Amino acid sequence: MKNTFGVSVSVTLFGESHGAEIGAVIDGLAPGIEIDEAFIASQLSLRRPSGRISTQRKESDPFRIVSGVFEGKTTGTPIAIIIPNADQKSKDYAKTRFLVRPGHADYTAYCKYHGFEDYRGGGHFSGRITAALVAAGAVCISALKQKGIFIGTHIARLASISDSPFSADIKSDITALCEKEFALINSSLEEPMKAAVTAAANEGDSVGGILETAVYGMPAGVGEPWFDSVESLLSHALFSIPAVKGIDFSSAFDKIDLKGSEYNDPFCIENGKVVTRTNNNGGINGGITNGMPIIFRLAIKPTPSIYKKQDTVDISSNENATLQIEGRHDPAIIHRARVVVDSVTALTLCDILAQRYGTDWLGGK
Amino acid sequence: MKNTFGVSVSVTLFGESHGAEIGAVIDGLAPGIEIDEAFIASQLSLRRPSGRISTQRKESDPFRIVSGVFEGKTTGTPIAIIIPNADQKSKDYAKTRFLVRPGHADYTAYCKYHGFEDYRGGGHFSGRITAALVAAGAVCISALKQKGIFIGTHIARLASISDSPFSADIKSDITALCEKEFALINSSLEEPMKAAVTAAANEGDSVGGILETAVYGMPAGVGEPWFDSVESLLSHALFSIPAVKGIDFSSAFDKIDLKGSEYNDPFCIENGKVVTRTNNNGGINGGITNGMPIIFRLAIKPTPSIYKKQDTVDISSNENATLQIEGRHDPAIIHRARVVVDSVTALTLCDILAQRYGTDWLGGK
Amino acid sequence: MKNTFGVSVSVTLFGESHGAEIGAVIDGLAPGIEIDEAFIASQLSLRRPSGRISTQRKESDPFRIVSGVFEGKTTGTPIAIIIPNADQKSKDYAKTRFLVRPGHADYTAYCKYHGFEDYRGGGHFSGRITAALVAAGAVCISALKQKGIFIGTHIARLASISDSPFSADIKSDITALCEKEFALINSSLEEPMKAAVTAAANEGDSVGGILETAVYGMPAGVGEPWFDSVESLLSHALFSIPAVKGIDFSSAFDKIDLKGSEYNDPFCIENGKVVTRTNNNGGINGGITNGMPIIFRLAIKPTPSIYKKQDTVDISSNENATLQIEGRHDPAIIHRARVVVDSVTALTLCDILAQRYGTDWLGGK
Amino acid sequence: MKNTFGVSVSVTLFGESHGAEIGAVIDGLAPGIEIDEAFIASQLSLRRPSGRISTQRKESDPFRIVSGVFEGKTTGTPIAIIIPNADQKSKDYAKTRFLVRPGHADYTAYCKYHGFEDYRGGGHFSGRITAALVAAGAVCISALKQKGIFIGTHIARLASISDSPFSADIKSDITALCEKEFALINSSLEEPMKAAVTAAANEGDSVGGILETAVYGMPAGVGEPWFDSVESLLSHALFSIPAVKGIDFSSAFDKIDLKGSEYNDPFCIENGKVVTRTNNNGGINGGITNGMPIIFRLAIKPTPSIYKKQDTVDISSNENATLQIEGRHDPAIIHRARVVVDSVTALTLCDILAQRYGTDWLGGK
Repeated sequence: MKNTFGVSVSVTLFGESHGAEIGAVIDGLAPGIEIDEAFIASQLSLRRPSGRISTQRKESDPFRIVSGVFEGKTTGTPIAIIIPNADQKSKDYAKTRFLVRPGHADYTAYCKYHGFEDYRGGGHFSGRITAALVAAGAVCISALKQKGIFIGTHIARLASISDSPFSADIKSDITALCEKEFALINSSLEEPMKAAVTAAANEGDSVGGILETAVYGMPAGVGEPWFDSVESLLSHALFSIPAVKGIDFSSAFDKIDLKGSEYNDPFCIENGKVVTRTNNNGGINGGITNGMPIIFRLAIKPTPSIYKKQDTVDISSNENATLQIEGRHDPAIIHRARVVVDSVTALTLCDILAQRYGTDWLGGK
Repeated sequence: MKNTFGVSVSVTLFGESHGAEIGAVIDGLAPGIEIDEAFIASQLSLRRPSGRISTQRKESDPFRIVSGVFEGKTTGTPIAIIIPNADQKSKDYAKTRFLVRPGHADYTAYCKYHGFEDYRGGGHFSGRITAALVAAGAVCISALKQKGIFIGTHIARLASISDSPFSADIKSDITALCEKEFALINSSLEEPMKAAVTAAANEGDSVGGILETAVYGMPAGVGEPWFDSVESLLSHALFSIPAVKGIDFSSAFDKIDLKGSEYNDPFCIENGKVVTRTNNNGGINGGITNGMPIIFRLAIKPTPSIYKKQDTVDISSNENATLQIEGRHDPAIIHRARVVVDSVTALTLCDILAQRYGTDWLGGK
Repeated sequence: MKNTFGVSVSVTLFGESHGAEIGAVIDGLAPGIEIDEAFIASQLSLRRPSGRISTQRKESDPFRIVSGVFEGKTTGTPIAIIIPNADQKSKDYAKTRFLVRPGHADYTAYCKYHGFEDYRGGGHFSGRITAALVAAGAVCISALKQKGIFIGTHIARLASISDSPFSADIKSDITALCEKEFALINSSLEEPMKAAVTAAANEGDSVGGILETAVYGMPAGVGEPWFDSVESLLSHALFSIPAVKGIDFSSAFDKIDLKGSEYNDPFCIENGKVVTRTNNNGGINGGITNGMPIIFRLAIKPTPSIYKKQDTVDISSNENATLQIEGRHDPAIIHRARVVVDSVTALTLCDILAQRYGTDWLGGK
Repeated sequence: MKNTFGVSVSVTLFGESHGAEIGAVIDGLAPGIEIDEAFIASQLSLRRPSGRISTQRKESDPFRIVSGVFEGKTTGTPIAIIIPNADQKSKDYAKTRFLVRPGHADYTAYCKYHGFEDYRGGGHFSGRITAALVAAGAVCISALKQKGIFIGTHIARLASISDSPFSADIKSDITALCEKEFALINSSLEEPMKAAVTAAANEGDSVGGILETAVYGMPAGVGEPWFDSVESLLSHALFSIPAVKGIDFSSAFDKIDLKGSEYNDPFCIENGKVVTRTNNNGGINGGITNGMPIIFRLAIKPTPSIYKKQDTVDISSNENATLQIEGRHDPAIIHRARVVVDSVTALTLCDILAQRYGTDWLGGK
């Protein structure tokens, strides 16, 4: 079930960077969910490369929903969203066919697919496929909002610059982030961050960083103790996003020297409801939601496509070689990846919730 | 499929801390793998609490393999391993039944199971269940060794003390670690680390840390680009281990400020084989193994059971309350968790390999 | 996921005919379901060989529920039921080790497991494993009853003798069948049927037949159009029962010459509820329940273990050979298989319902 | 995983009768399999309605393979095949919106999807979706042929007329059947069968029948004893085909009165190979292939769309009503369903083989 994720709500991906069309099939979503095509388009535009700090490949994403939606609402049957590819410059890739790019999947694809893979622009490994994920995720984000569940991600760190943390009013932070093109809690850092990216780009180099996501409104008591913990399912799905190399909940790696008495989150009653005073467990105890916000960070490695000359091998001759990448590439993708993270998070939570409460719940029945 | 993980090779867990027996069923392992009961017993002893810095609960683990093994070898049918529980002091738990322990799953279990859960000693959420995982994992570790694949984990950090990193000779490091009861590359740190744990214990407190794992010998070309990346499957399985709150590959969170030119791992030919000069991608590109060692770290939160008085709520009355935990608890579990990590890693890799190469491969056919 | 079936509610089987213990793990059942150990025992006794027309192997099934049940009710975590094996005469099998029994799985097991399989008494292929299925199924049957869903099976045909069909009052038929040891609607056929079995046994031969099952009380709107139709899931699970070689819904094979106008079931309103006048579709349209009873038949082939001399091959020498089976065998298993069918049906329906209505539904929350 | 079937090789379906496009995504097929677009087109033409005895809806199936194929061969990544819908007369359906058609899924879809379903032409339940299955199956049929595995289906019975059975030379029978538009072993029955269909059509009625399928060349030792028996997986997949209401292996329902000594298939050595003298077990013992042809029959109910006036209910008012179907409908679909059966069989066998022998096997690596 390689390109399918999810049990009660699942998504299946297909397509390559330089193929005719890419797409996603969402299955298991409740009937009766309103489809907001303008929101899908706006989510796609957040993912789309734009401005100085992105690849100059022009993507426009005229998606088609070809099934599973009738009279503006989900039917409960599979929703197929298809996005044509355009503006491909495939000949850029032919001449470096066998010079596997460091940090990319060229070599591992060759080992796995024996040379039958579509190597152009990363083929099926391309970040391009995330456009389909974003379109599918947008439907899920809308469905979750109707149930009072909100997801937002900020660029917690980029090129050694750290954004402010989430405030106590996480719901407002989420709302604000979702409206920003460059997702920072402290937007005064936008220019310094962009300048750092441009500086790297000017050197033919690239940068990475950390994304931090918050989910507000998840009911308590959702998830499983073994194997299908909420951390397990989120990490499984999120590691599919190209460039993600780490995840922790509530910045666990930064808190690792705390004592138990500092790390444990004391329970208390607030407005008649059980809450925790701190949230070091990121909203999850024993794999199951406790009703507090789910908080996690993702380590995003620097974009592997750089213009600097690199050492590599020629896999057709098994000899050392030197590679000078051409084509159009991003010096950073973290600002674009953020909407992919929201999308994958939404897909995963829809699945967890449909498993828990049944197939009609997200549709309001 | 809540308590089952894996597709071609799967493990199913059952049991509670204070139930009669716990166990694991491994399914899909190739026929013809030799079963080394002494090795299973020795792995269980590494997990078992012992010495000053562990709980005083005495566990002995007289496991029984009741199916799937015939004349000392796997048959190819499900292997059920059963471990009786013993030395339970269930009455310790009754009086604090409704005082949910901070950092534990008591509250989330209550939300999920509506009070029908076996609350004694953490019930099905208990670290006790990992004994079954370790027994199952031992079979997989043996199978992988026969194919030249070796797994080792060290305590990379505990109570603010950091172990030495893996050396260039990772295979030897792994061999050495597997023979140590307290898994450090630099064993001179054992006493300071244990002293720090004892100091925390004396204050009624606990500590956490970081485990780092290396896998040597995985073939290149294994894993999937979307959803079933090697990172996805490992993280899915590893987040099931109680107290794991973060994972990164090749210390990605520590390398997040590197540029692409520093992070990319250049390929080169070494002894006629494609390798990378650095291993910042932790042996995985595009979700697929590249033949270099797989390296990951796990953030292990401090044990939530502490003797210090804690604020909490009484869920029977929905009122604030104070909790003083009694019973027997570990001031640290990281040194015991290490063998659980090896086990879960082995189970996951066996599954990935059997999917790739078929159901007979691990047995040598 | 070879020995595991189900998504939201799953069952995992382990064990061999001549191993130490067999068992089943049920996962995903709602918390709060009452466990009736006497009912489990009584279901096991219906499966157990007894009387003249069964094997003389004495099975007693002192099952243990070792997890997932607390204070008499399900906890929501995995329920492991373990049944020790006893009264094995393993040496009966050694001398015919390589003479593969016609109609049995000896040869196919050898092809699949390369000789590492436990060949004694059919090993993991043995009907003995169905004892674990029956114990697990009993829990599900109880859960379904609480929701008004009842399952019953009769021996529709045995040794050329046909039982009466289900009457218009299917619910009463089911209740009556569940209390009979030899499940006939027309019990006056019990003696002739048993006499026919004895006659076959006296010739060293065996008989098969047809089981017919009815499920009363399933809500309408459950199931899926493609791949997970109710027919698909039931047939998938039921073909696991040894000796099942065919299934049809509402005797479809017997109605195959009907015209559409005769086969279609006209809808009408009865007591304000939508029902159908006939039930040729066996309670399922387009893979989804329509609220009418689910009706299906299973073709049960004659028991392959017969005492008559048979031609076969010796797989150790690859030569033709003659086989004279000894040991204890059933001249018919259909009367015992009936409770296995009810059990597998119950497990499958619990899964379908939990997927549809969420994990708490069967427990009444 | 409602609209996805398969583990190592899977297919995902989407689309509705009157939506924009339908499609299938095949995942997990080995890299390097040649794609024969002419064969896909020819398989689609076998499914397409044509001639007097089919619906007058004109379908042409200009499929597009938009991913997973590069330079004429499979890449190993998901293959998406998309087929646009055309010649829809949606207004035919609006006026009978709430008059649920007997034998159809209208009522059960309404119960499941609460009225949000696309009701036009059966929506997602439509036989139209099988065009996508056939296209996907054609790729699998080609892959299997390369490995010496051949699949063929004949109309064993239609309107009370029975075709000749498979001969001893099953491989030749299969080859011949695959080239026939109206799949009969004895083609002299084509005219009488078509005449019977026309006669039913003239009365505004429809007919069903029995399809029988043979698979030649499956290796021995493939399949699983419990839950994933070859019978289980084939029946699971095949019951997804609209109108299938029964399946048996080697005509088990017709052989149910045989004794064990008649039903058991004696093994013998033929040209140094283990074979069976008869094949009453349909190529499968204990759920696992024995190397003999796999043989099964499917009961195909008469097409539910008939022009005769029928009793039904109006689900908008919950009242009894009368229905006179208009539109274009088939008096028989069995002759078209046959290629769907071959396709679904091929998809299932590819999955079973890839699980057994690994992901490269079908591609020849």
